Amino acid sequence: MSSPALQAHTLKVELGERSYPIVIGHGTLSQLGPAVKARTGASRAFVISVPPVAKRYGATVERSLVGAGIATRRFVIPDGERSKSLREAEKLYAALLAAEADRASVVVALGGGVVGDLAGFVAATLLRGVAFVQVPTTLLAMVDSSVGGKTGVNVKRGKNLVGAFHQPKLVWIDAATLKTLPRRELLAGLAEGVKHAVIRDPKLFAWLERELERLLDLDPEILLPFLARNCAIKAEVVSRDERESGERMLLNFGHTLGHAVEALSKYEGVLHGEAVAIGMSYAARRSEELGLAAPGSAVRLVALLARAGLPTELPRFPRRAYLESISADKKKRDARIRFVALRAIGRAETVPLLASEILPALERGGAKR
Amino acid sequence: MSSPALQAHTLKVELGERSYPIVIGHGTLSQLGPAVKARTGASRAFVISVPPVAKRYGATVERSLVGAGIATRRFVIPDGERSKSLREAEKLYAALLAAEADRASVVVALGGGVVGDLAGFVAATLLRGVAFVQVPTTLLAMVDSSVGGKTGVNVKRGKNLVGAFHQPKLVWIDAATLKTLPRRELLAGLAEGVKHAVIRDPKLFAWLERELERLLDLDPEILLPFLARNCAIKAEVVSRDERESGERMLLNFGHTLGHAVEALSKYEGVLHGEAVAIGMSYAARRSEELGLAAPGSAVRLVALLARAGLPTELPRFPRRAYLESISADKKKRDARIRFVALRAIGRAETVPLLASEILPALERGGAKR
Repeated sequence: MSSPALQAHTLKVELGERSYPIVIGHGTLSQLGPAVKARTGASRAFVISVPPVAKRYGATVERSLVGAGIATRRFVIPDGERSKSLREAEKLYAALLAAEADRASVVVALGGGVVGDLAGFVAATLLRGVAFVQVPTTLLAMVDSSVGGKTGVNVKRGKNLVGAFHQPKLVWIDAATLKTLPRRELLAGLAEGVKHAVIRDPKLFAWLERELERLLDLDPEILLPFLARNCAIKAEVVSRDERESGERMLLNFGHTLGHAVEALSKYEGVLHGEAVAIGMSYAARRSEELGLAAPGSAVRLVALLARAGLPTELPRFPRRAYLESISADKKKRDARIRFVALRAIGRAETVPLLASEILPALERGGAKR
Repeated sequence: MSSPALQAHTLKVELGERSYPIVIGHGTLSQLGPAVKARTGASRAFVISVPPVAKRYGATVERSLVGAGIATRRFVIPDGERSKSLREAEKLYAALLAAEADRASVVVALGGGVVGDLAGFVAATLLRGVAFVQVPTTLLAMVDSSVGGKTGVNVKRGKNLVGAFHQPKLVWIDAATLKTLPRRELLAGLAEGVKHAVIRDPKLFAWLERELERLLDLDPEILLPFLARNCAIKAEVVSRDERESGERMLLNFGHTLGHAVEALSKYEGVLHGEAVAIGMSYAARRSEELGLAAPGSAVRLVALLARAGLPTELPRFPRRAYLESISADKKKRDARIRFVALRAIGRAETVPLLASEILPALERGGAKR
């Protein structure tokens, strides 16, 4: 356990006065309290979590916060995407205000993407914004959703259509919490990690090809550098384009079709990361067909995802359903969609395409089969 | 009508990349469209208003927006404070998304504080933030709530407890719309204007003492400079302290007791500006008693408010009710309340006081009578 790889890594998301550290360690949950105190000066903490995570890690986190002189209360929301609702946010507003939340309070999200998105939205909007700390316990949240300040809830019309940009004061990653994460969720998180590599870092991609099995075994000597490199990529992109007006859109690689797969599946039976794996595979193949990506890029990406056990083929919904779904994508501007195309392993760019160009009628590898 | 006083005034709220102009004119509603286009580049506008304002001014605003090449839809919410709710926000999310709101859309608030606060909150949180333009049609909104980016809704526990800071891209003030504002609402707006003068600008205060009647007659030669000076004060304070961590708190002068009066009246029978007039009168007297304000300050302030026809005495609720109400004020930190005290006509500062120091047991001019 004294290997240099197990040293905590500290990165910084550079956003002027909204800058914040990401601290990545192994077995560090019990050291959260002093870091929260130092970063926020908060006198009260409200830990928001879901039942399985609260049960395993709630007491450790709370002991650490209380030990740092922060009065701490826990609020448990139901597990699952349905909790990302205005209804659930309203319940939290009432509960936190009843517990005397004020502007010197901090909201601590302990869990995965659902907890982070909902707790972050509540922190963004309670009293016009209180301090917020992310303690991600899923791989997806560690490599992706806990960094960057996107918060939100779902409404009838779609996912994340209501939300805010609200940067955390601190992201505290304890990689040891992944030991209790179901394998399927681990793989779903890996998909976003592969995404970072394929759009931006050919060396990371090649390293993943070599070390995939050790990573999935959660070998800390592989896991910690993997988390650090992923957070560094996310932090760089967010620093340059906080509100997704340009470069940050590249992080949507695989998401146009991924969102469609999720929506057409009614968000059942498919995890977000799995849908992204499918969407990336499709986007890479289509990028090659359009002459945008270097030949051989798609097969390398698909092979890595498949080797991890992730799905890579579009489910068989009618092409018209896919077309309608991607046309309603909230990232569209006018008629064209900013499709994130692959140029090579390690490089992506946005290309404005019509829905029918993304999903041509006779697409061999596509929805028609 | 060619007097120099009737020239449009343009001020700027300096907030780096979030800076925006405040344009103050007379009869300028029909020129809104090109300004919105220039400032936002929006292709779609959603005008949010209340029935009486929509009826009088909706068509003019919409014609101007459409003339500037912006597809425009109108959404009318019920008049009154009750519309500042999560329920109403949710209806607007659904309606705007159904009307194809996207990130190139702009939300235009046409009305008073309720419309601005609700529409601003929706703009802040729809798709994690879309462009927002304020077109205030009440004096309160013109001199105060339309500038500064505070948006919010009420929850059971209190007013404005959920919200966001979301700066508009443009504030467009047509003083001619005040002609149709009920006299009582005009006076309520005046109270916030007097507040700006008394906390910051002794010359403005003295000018108000001279010109009060012409102002209340809506003489444009008085009204326009009054609006311009008020917006300039608000803009200066907001530029230096966007998120109310310091100087901006001075704008809460009169609001500690003012909010208590509103809450104890259950927001019925008393307008916000009237409650602020009462709160300012109380705060000025108490500041003198505590030896903080120069003698004679309170009587001058109270005289001006009374001359306008504004209330200046606390309603007779039990002292205990006032104490409880101000202790629950969301601006408190720990036990002490940051009370905004008057030092002289034109100068205020925050003083940390216990609720019992703000409202002493035997207070002559206070709640006990």
